[in-house]
Amino acid sequence: MLFFHPFDQENTFTLSEEESRHCIKALRYQKGDVIAITNGMGESAEAIITNDNIKACEVKITERKKVEPKRFLHVAIAPTKNADRIEWLVEKATELGVEKISLIQTERTERNFIKKERLDKIAISAIKQSHQFYVPEIVVGKKIEDLLVEETDIKLIAFVDRNNPVQFKEKLLSNQKILILIGPEGDFTAEEVALAEQHHFTKVSLGNNILRTETAGLLACCAVYTING
Amino acid sequence: MLFFHPFDQENTFTLSEEESRHCIKALRYQKGDVIAITNGMGESAEAIITNDNIKACEVKITERKKVEPKRFLHVAIAPTKNADRIEWLVEKATELGVEKISLIQTERTERNFIKKERLDKIAISAIKQSHQFYVPEIVVGKKIEDLLVEETDIKLIAFVDRNNPVQFKEKLLSNQKILILIGPEGDFTAEEVALAEQHHFTKVSLGNNILRTETAGLLACCAVYTING
Repeated sequence: MLFFHPFDQENTFTLSEEESRHCIKALRYQKGDVIAITNGMGESAEAIITNDNIKACEVKITERKKVEPKRFLHVAIAPTKNADRIEWLVEKATELGVEKISLIQTERTERNFIKKERLDKIAISAIKQSHQFYVPEIVVGKKIEDLLVEETDIKLIAFVDRNNPVQFKEKLLSNQKILILIGPEGDFTAEEVALAEQHHFTKVSLGNNILRTETAGLLACCAVYTING
Repeated sequence: MLFFHPFDQENTFTLSEEESRHCIKALRYQKGDVIAITNGMGESAEAIITNDNIKACEVKITERKKVEPKRFLHVAIAPTKNADRIEWLVEKATELGVEKISLIQTERTERNFIKKERLDKIAISAIKQSHQFYVPEIVVGKKIEDLLVEETDIKLIAFVDRNNPVQFKEKLLSNQKILILIGPEGDFTAEEVALAEQHHFTKVSLGNNILRTETAGLLACCAVYTING
């Protein structure tokens, strides 16, 4: 089990109430036990429990190391009408090691209100579960225009150009930073696609099936995870 | 929109109450309109509405064609404790065009009771949504032993052999039938893995992250979809 605490330079700190309960009540760790903790910013630490209070577990780091980030994907996706589907996507994308998830406002985006705090919690829980040391950055409410100028190696927009179809997989390279834009159920508008193309995004097809927005996002996560695995 | 009805040779039939409501009430189709229907067994048909009864919509097929099956994956997976996660996997696997999903009993499987009828409904809904003409076969309650003798081109078991790690992606070939076994959260037992190996299954790693069972299943679906896209 991996615990989470957003520690920085300090070597002693108190876990959150939720983490304390999980550690002391659910998993029955006791004073003197050693646990693994990450700060979600690339640090993996071993810490000894110095106070096994059920609501305020105190620990002291005995060893820390920095883990190299091997994260290559930024998924920028229009949130779905149903919030559950976004939450699933955040959980799965996190398990699959994405670097960043942007929930974007497009012309046809179906939902504008996003509980970022809830998504951050899901992401933290998913890194603990999948034993990773980086929490993906989750950004909400960006306009598509804000993303067009991002610095990255490969820029893609999921949109089928029937005259000139390019398969997503043909554009993937390992060890390259990839940004992919994924539209809402109603798709990007022609203007949005044209704007992305002006900014050197390549239109790519995600295959023959009509995928739901969140499935398209997951497919991108799986493909980039696989190619870098 | 694609509708579903399990038709065979007959050219006239009545849609189910649910499909009728969807067609006539929600989407406001009327007598004389032409709709697209699949039987989930590879047939894509056009049909004219001959009676727009809200609970019993009658249609007559005017054109039918058989669609070539391009489905290569059989995912055999231990069901998760939380039924939502299996249901989600069935939806996503169907969107991604899998041929068959077996929910298997293994030594450490956490759930034995599966509502197959509900999973079939989810799969039908997903083929409509993703515009496909085959419903995956969903099999429940099989033992791992039953799957070991399946005829297929490539046989894999998701299990990390630290001495001899083989990446999943290295074993994938396009246009080949693939069967992959995915274990429960507690993993397969050493005996189960040995048994699979005796039946020519190859142990493969799904990468460095510890993935939840359903995420592992999804990753397999995405990889096989991508390689055959």
